[in-house]
Amino acid sequence: MQLQLLFWMCLLTVYSIIATAVTQSIEFPEWDWGDELTTAIGVAIGVLLVFRNRSAYDRWWEARTLWGKLINDSRNLAVKTAAFAEIEPNDRQAFAELLIAFPHALRMHLRGQREPMPNVAALYPEFDEAQHRPAFISLQIFKLMNKWNRGNKLFTSIRILERHGNGLLDVCGACERIRNTPMVSSYLYITWCSVILYCLAAPWPMGVNFGWYALPIVLLSNGFLLAMEVVAETIEEPFGTEQDDLPLERYCSSIESFVRDTLA
Amino acid sequence: MQLQLLFWMCLLTVYSIIATAVTQSIEFPEWDWGDELTTAIGVAIGVLLVFRNRSAYDRWWEARTLWGKLINDSRNLAVKTAAFAEIEPNDRQAFAELLIAFPHALRMHLRGQREPMPNVAALYPEFDEAQHRPAFISLQIFKLMNKWNRGNKLFTSIRILERHGNGLLDVCGACERIRNTPMVSSYLYITWCSVILYCLAAPWPMGVNFGWYALPIVLLSNGFLLAMEVVAETIEEPFGTEQDDLPLERYCSSIESFVRDTLA
Amino acid sequence: MQLQLLFWMCLLTVYSIIATAVTQSIEFPEWDWGDELTTAIGVAIGVLLVFRNRSAYDRWWEARTLWGKLINDSRNLAVKTAAFAEIEPNDRQAFAELLIAFPHALRMHLRGQREPMPNVAALYPEFDEAQHRPAFISLQIFKLMNKWNRGNKLFTSIRILERHGNGLLDVCGACERIRNTPMVSSYLYITWCSVILYCLAAPWPMGVNFGWYALPIVLLSNGFLLAMEVVAETIEEPFGTEQDDLPLERYCSSIESFVRDTLA
Amino acid sequence: MQLQLLFWMCLLTVYSIIATAVTQSIEFPEWDWGDELTTAIGVAIGVLLVFRNRSAYDRWWEARTLWGKLINDSRNLAVKTAAFAEIEPNDRQAFAELLIAFPHALRMHLRGQREPMPNVAALYPEFDEAQHRPAFISLQIFKLMNKWNRGNKLFTSIRILERHGNGLLDVCGACERIRNTPMVSSYLYITWCSVILYCLAAPWPMGVNFGWYALPIVLLSNGFLLAMEVVAETIEEPFGTEQDDLPLERYCSSIESFVRDTLA
Amino acid sequence: MQLQLLFWMCLLTVYSIIATAVTQSIEFPEWDWGDELTTAIGVAIGVLLVFRNRSAYDRWWEARTLWGKLINDSRNLAVKTAAFAEIEPNDRQAFAELLIAFPHALRMHLRGQREPMPNVAALYPEFDEAQHRPAFISLQIFKLMNKWNRGNKLFTSIRILERHGNGLLDVCGACERIRNTPMVSSYLYITWCSVILYCLAAPWPMGVNFGWYALPIVLLSNGFLLAMEVVAETIEEPFGTEQDDLPLERYCSSIESFVRDTLA
Repeated sequence: MQLQLLFWMCLLTVYSIIATAVTQSIEFPEWDWGDELTTAIGVAIGVLLVFRNRSAYDRWWEARTLWGKLINDSRNLAVKTAAFAEIEPNDRQAFAELLIAFPHALRMHLRGQREPMPNVAALYPEFDEAQHRPAFISLQIFKLMNKWNRGNKLFTSIRILERHGNGLLDVCGACERIRNTPMVSSYLYITWCSVILYCLAAPWPMGVNFGWYALPIVLLSNGFLLAMEVVAETIEEPFGTEQDDLPLERYCSSIESFVRDTLA
Repeated sequence: MQLQLLFWMCLLTVYSIIATAVTQSIEFPEWDWGDELTTAIGVAIGVLLVFRNRSAYDRWWEARTLWGKLINDSRNLAVKTAAFAEIEPNDRQAFAELLIAFPHALRMHLRGQREPMPNVAALYPEFDEAQHRPAFISLQIFKLMNKWNRGNKLFTSIRILERHGNGLLDVCGACERIRNTPMVSSYLYITWCSVILYCLAAPWPMGVNFGWYALPIVLLSNGFLLAMEVVAETIEEPFGTEQDDLPLERYCSSIESFVRDTLA
Repeated sequence: MQLQLLFWMCLLTVYSIIATAVTQSIEFPEWDWGDELTTAIGVAIGVLLVFRNRSAYDRWWEARTLWGKLINDSRNLAVKTAAFAEIEPNDRQAFAELLIAFPHALRMHLRGQREPMPNVAALYPEFDEAQHRPAFISLQIFKLMNKWNRGNKLFTSIRILERHGNGLLDVCGACERIRNTPMVSSYLYITWCSVILYCLAAPWPMGVNFGWYALPIVLLSNGFLLAMEVVAETIEEPFGTEQDDLPLERYCSSIESFVRDTLA
Repeated sequence: MQLQLLFWMCLLTVYSIIATAVTQSIEFPEWDWGDELTTAIGVAIGVLLVFRNRSAYDRWWEARTLWGKLINDSRNLAVKTAAFAEIEPNDRQAFAELLIAFPHALRMHLRGQREPMPNVAALYPEFDEAQHRPAFISLQIFKLMNKWNRGNKLFTSIRILERHGNGLLDVCGACERIRNTPMVSSYLYITWCSVILYCLAAPWPMGVNFGWYALPIVLLSNGFLLAMEVVAETIEEPFGTEQDDLPLERYCSSIESFVRDTLA
Repeated sequence: MQLQLLFWMCLLTVYSIIATAVTQSIEFPEWDWGDELTTAIGVAIGVLLVFRNRSAYDRWWEARTLWGKLINDSRNLAVKTAAFAEIEPNDRQAFAELLIAFPHALRMHLRGQREPMPNVAALYPEFDEAQHRPAFISLQIFKLMNKWNRGNKLFTSIRILERHGNGLLDVCGACERIRNTPMVSSYLYITWCSVILYCLAAPWPMGVNFGWYALPIVLLSNGFLLAMEVVAETIEEPFGTEQDDLPLERYCSSIESFVRDTLA
């Protein structure tokens, strides 16, 4: 984000300096409505940017909450399996591997990556061909539950476990929704146009009326608008690997260590 | 949307040019409150448009979330049927067809279309006469579940499956709610009146006070207001086929390929 | 709503004309703070009206969502009874009548009406004396379910049906909450006072400073504020029969035709 | 609320009159930035007051929704007990008394009152010593359910009843949360300071620049700010007995008459 | 918080006095756009601070609601165990200790503390080595439930108890989410920069145009912005021990006394 912002700011600074220099060297008629322009368009853009940043932030926070739910459901599954299921160590081990693999698979799925996952592939050789890897893992989790249930190892507690099993696929679907649904393109378009037009127009009336004194103010207010816009864009895609994106690796390893502790 | 906006902008441009020309050729008394008019009405319209765009966007996002829920419930149903139900391939196939048909039926239902769906009609000849096709499919899904349950093929897991079956009809009802409930008509009326009045009034005081210099500003601020209004109107009906509407076809085929993968 | 607004606007127009005439005929000292008054109070009222319209709109939308839930729950009940309950045609018919009667009873209950409902009264003669008719219907629905359950006709699916039975009474209670809880009276009071004071005060300084030119602006901005206030008041009571109120009759007949189709 | 507001307004009026008189009798240098002060601080306070009133109103509405849930859960419990439980009249009577007593006990609990409740005490002599009376009643309700369940009088419907039993204690806990958690004290402090400072400062520049003409405007805008602040404070504690507080007595008697009708 | 604010205010006061003194002693050209600077940047910062304070307050309120849920679930677990479980006094005692220990363990977990908890350690010697103490307690609670369930002491009510058992771990996970997810760092950065730049820049134009009269206004508006920023920062981390943080100790002891009363 910082690099992108820096690049735009440099461009803008050069442009503003040139604009101010031109206004100082050529004799313009004095406009007494320069500030009206600034205020009117400024209010409009402010309204838009608040709206845009709020919906971007809401997406970001929803994504965070979804991964929080994934952590909760994984933990509950681990704890409840340890408490309610009287199963063989083998199954316990396989279940733990599946629980651990799910967030990793989801993370790669959301980022379009597909690294090998040897632990799961060792248990389920057909895993490597699975199209939708989180769904494959979720299916194996439910199959294990079904086996235990029919083997009467859960003693009326199948629904206690199953409830959290849903959570896995629900989180996956909701994360895909956030990743695949960009902000309404018309809003993006209007916001960008407004910010660009404002940044291009602002130096001229300010330069004509106030000369070089106006430069720092123009740069500051333009930088502010640009920063808001750039942050909104970064925040909107919370599953990337940029600075303010969610630390999915950390969540994955937090689930991993918890499940290993509880089920090992 | 773009065409509609373009059309309005052209009209507005011609009008503004004429208005400015008139103010320049005839001698008007100078009004020193032209900017007060602009500011006061501008703030009022800004307030209204934010309110309107937010509720329009909320509808759009709710519609998106509903289809996300439909995808989740369809996936969960497919995965859980594969894991928990010990059924014959025939039933499995029929169930898959029903799951795949539901989003297609809902999509057409929301758009007022009624294309033939041969796959379902092959299984259920009475399908073609069904009034409410999503409800018909949902009924068949529950009937299959009931058959399996009474045939003891689900082994205490009927409620595990049924829960997601609800989701189908719930999503259908909620989508109908969004489609059938327009924005409160009074707000629409007030918003349109304000935008139109503003666009009609703005060129006159600006023209009188600032002459031809004011034209680009008038056009920009009017275009901005119009764009906001037009976007809100498009967004409010998220089930259409315009640019920013939801890509229902894509969601349908995503469900289709997932269900085929899991249950085939 | 339109009539009420028209009436207020007429009063206001007459008042503004008189006020402007007085300011023109008598020599007032020129006030250079007329616009400050307008801006300061205008911002305050804008803030209040946004707050008020948003909470009014939220009530309206919540009411809409509740009736959407009622439609969903009625549909799910009908579909699931058709799928899961192996019952006699008599009971099926009675159940359908009860499901159909509930929204009608709720609609009348919310509007303080009490028309005879012969279909239900034919089945349950004591219906006519029932104090709370929606609760009576809900009780009969649960009694039917209990009878089927104890007669072993539901085969472990009692909770599948019962879940949607809750919805009926929940919607009823929530609708009563919206109907019986007016907006905090202090806010109503402050809003009305502000709008009235503004409308009364605005023509004077505008008239003194700008003369007859100010009249259209005064009328427009006052009309705008009044319209917002009047709309908020209409929207706040969404169960009436005014223009922007919810079309409860349409929802009732939508449920009716669906239930008849599914259970007949 | 009105008395409190009146008292503050009187104080403020006297102060403003004195301030204006002083500015008129002593020769102050004319300040041309009086309106900047007003606008800048006014905007800041407006922002704060909107934020404060919205969170106060949200608390109020949440409290209302909680009591609505209590009414719903009590009704559902009554209706479902009547429909599903085949119990003796004695138990039925005791259950009705407990359901009726719960909202009364909660109301007194929230207001720090402890009036005798003879009906419950007649059934459970140890009630008078109970520390937390709503919890005591809730415990007895669950004990009755358990007795019926083990006596096989509920026939698989224990969870149907129990679900609404949760609601009672959940509502109690949530109401205590609202009552025991004041608004973040820093916000209260900043809001009060801002309003007071504004009210103290406003008469001086207005008096210096505009003389006695300014008095009504100063009084109006100060009264407006004070009213907003005072309303927010009243609304924030929704369980009291002031004008805009919730009519808990009415809710209690509504539950009472419903339960008596249904279970008698 | 107060200390931090005081420190910044002192720094700012000294700086503003110096700045004003400089503007008075040196002859600056008069700038007639000082107020434009103030207004434009002021509006931008106001927008940002509202956004920031609202999301900070939402976190705070969510944390409060989570602890409210913890109180509710603990109470429901205690009441329901007393009502539904026919267990030995020993188990009852152990269960009570676990329920009481959970909030204490969570409180310390959230604050990074690890005081000894002798009551739990007496029952479960391995407790002292547990990595994640709330999870350990939650596991023991579920193990007790499983033991009772398999010993047939719950009589079909396992899911009635288990439901609230989930709540414990869910609250824990959600609290960790709030604690571990700071506000998007870009917003923090932009907010701080804006506030600081405003505070540094404001005294100069005000001093040049209005002299020493401007000082109190500059100090007030700067203090206001700083206070908003500092409050937002405190509120954002609701689990600390500062003035406006949540009184976790009080919640813990409220749960403790309730559980002891009910299960002793």
